[in-house]
Amino acid sequence: MHRTFPDWTTFCTSLPQIQAAETRIRSLIIETPTIPFAALGDDIGCSLAFKCENFQHGFAFKARGACNAVFSLTDAEAARGVVTHSSGNHAAALARAAKLRGILAHIVMPENSARIKLAAVRSLGVEPVLCKSTPAAREAMAQDVMRTTGATLIHPFNDARVIAGQGTIALEILRQCPDVETIIVPVGGGGLLAGTLIAVKSLKPSVRIIAAEPEWADDAFRSLQSGQIESVLRTDSIADGLRTPLGSLTFPIIHQLVDEILCVSEAAINEAMQQLGTHAKMIVEPSGAVPLAAVRQHRDRFANQRIVCVVSGGNRDDPTLTV
Amino acid sequence: MHRTFPDWTTFCTSLPQIQAAETRIRSLIIETPTIPFAALGDDIGCSLAFKCENFQHGFAFKARGACNAVFSLTDAEAARGVVTHSSGNHAAALARAAKLRGILAHIVMPENSARIKLAAVRSLGVEPVLCKSTPAAREAMAQDVMRTTGATLIHPFNDARVIAGQGTIALEILRQCPDVETIIVPVGGGGLLAGTLIAVKSLKPSVRIIAAEPEWADDAFRSLQSGQIESVLRTDSIADGLRTPLGSLTFPIIHQLVDEILCVSEAAINEAMQQLGTHAKMIVEPSGAVPLAAVRQHRDRFANQRIVCVVSGGNRDDPTLTV
Repeated sequence: MHRTFPDWTTFCTSLPQIQAAETRIRSLIIETPTIPFAALGDDIGCSLAFKCENFQHGFAFKARGACNAVFSLTDAEAARGVVTHSSGNHAAALARAAKLRGILAHIVMPENSARIKLAAVRSLGVEPVLCKSTPAAREAMAQDVMRTTGATLIHPFNDARVIAGQGTIALEILRQCPDVETIIVPVGGGGLLAGTLIAVKSLKPSVRIIAAEPEWADDAFRSLQSGQIESVLRTDSIADGLRTPLGSLTFPIIHQLVDEILCVSEAAINEAMQQLGTHAKMIVEPSGAVPLAAVRQHRDRFANQRIVCVVSGGNRDDPTLTV
Repeated sequence: MHRTFPDWTTFCTSLPQIQAAETRIRSLIIETPTIPFAALGDDIGCSLAFKCENFQHGFAFKARGACNAVFSLTDAEAARGVVTHSSGNHAAALARAAKLRGILAHIVMPENSARIKLAAVRSLGVEPVLCKSTPAAREAMAQDVMRTTGATLIHPFNDARVIAGQGTIALEILRQCPDVETIIVPVGGGGLLAGTLIAVKSLKPSVRIIAAEPEWADDAFRSLQSGQIESVLRTDSIADGLRTPLGSLTFPIIHQLVDEILCVSEAAINEAMQQLGTHAKMIVEPSGAVPLAAVRQHRDRFANQRIVCVVSGGNRDDPTLTV
């Protein structure tokens, strides 16, 4: 399947844009820590650390892309507001970014969104526009809002400004862990993965970037094999943030730059989430546990490596954890 | 009650010893992050960050003092092993430090210790010596082990090497948050508090150090009022790490240097522990939530301040959180 000669000129963003994003959003986001937790890698013989975006504003990396997009708008664009469709963390992140800039946000959310994610948007003063839980219904509703308000669409991942914002995570990882050998990133729509790939393969191409996704949402794995964007065949993975196909902007970057995509079982995701509680004292949402699940399910690949797993978020709709 | 003219020459440790401890233990401990969580202070109007010793080796700050003590021993002393009595986190920390140096550890633990803390010691290859749950029974058993083995006692807090090790937390806080105005530290036996006081009041005396303890274990508060070490009157606070009276080495430091001691209710501790789960995505043990409980129960004192709360540990014996 392998792809030689990546054509960087065709990518929607670049290292300088990621570096500019870092400057733009510095005061709006948290430089989250990368924390080692030896016990989780000892039996595999690898050194494991976690980039903790569950400690980011809104408890997810989405704050980065949303802030970069909203603060990239001209004043005239900003005055007409922003709109997005999102099942969750991007929704709250865009509501927060809009509030920080003092503009309106219209947030289209599927009616079956996690309660904690609906509540997060409401707590920022935005009443979500609910729609049916299909990609087509979301897109249609967002288009409708754009037509009636003139708001700018800030897509959750298929947006160059959003991808550049997410890529700032990778700049921090390379500074925090200069000897990292492998970075593992969860992949849904691919914004986080694409931004990470552009940053790392520009600055330090020897670092391996591995994507991890649920077996039940293995569209990115199949897209890499077929060479085109494949759709998600089922929508019941516990990793609710990853049930999304790649986008036209994220796919070419991922296809040409990623080292490998690994799929993980639902059982492995659940176990990884519990291990992060027991052995890392962190509350992580299912999508955020997928990289650790990949290490543990595919352990033979990871012996003797210095690995950073990106914990993408902590918004877990689980009453046993929050009483 | 206030105390002028602290007599630094009478204290058992000093800033240079804390700095030497930092060098000695650097490769043995984690420099834990200090992470801001705005939501927890917004309604009070303060800026709150948390020094996360729940992410330390053994999930508690005790790794610092134990490593400093064990690696301060001469080879001849080390060869005879170490002994301690502890209800918990110091026990596992000493077992780990001894294992790192390759020497024997004898760990005397009360028979009613938290399961998770007994299991932690066993996982390090040490079978705890169980005793009755009174200070006298613990001391007697530890003396017995010393007599028969020649092992060196590493007291959980009344030990200059342990106090210096715990003080390294404060060096990190001052570097990580150079504009901190108030540091809040839980107080049990006082090792962490005494080390923090020596470091901070030497380097930057304008930073306020506030100690927090349960109302049900308010011995430090009463000791400060009476000017002598008072005993703990009940042993049923949920904050199991703080049910200990001050020691002969920690009391004079605390008495002369601490700015204030605040007591908190059991309800406030429980609520703070839950808030750290919901709004900081962290699993914290009851003792580690006591500083946040102090901010929230005594909120009028903290408006407009930049505060760091020390989260002392994450070993929570709670099946709903680790299932």
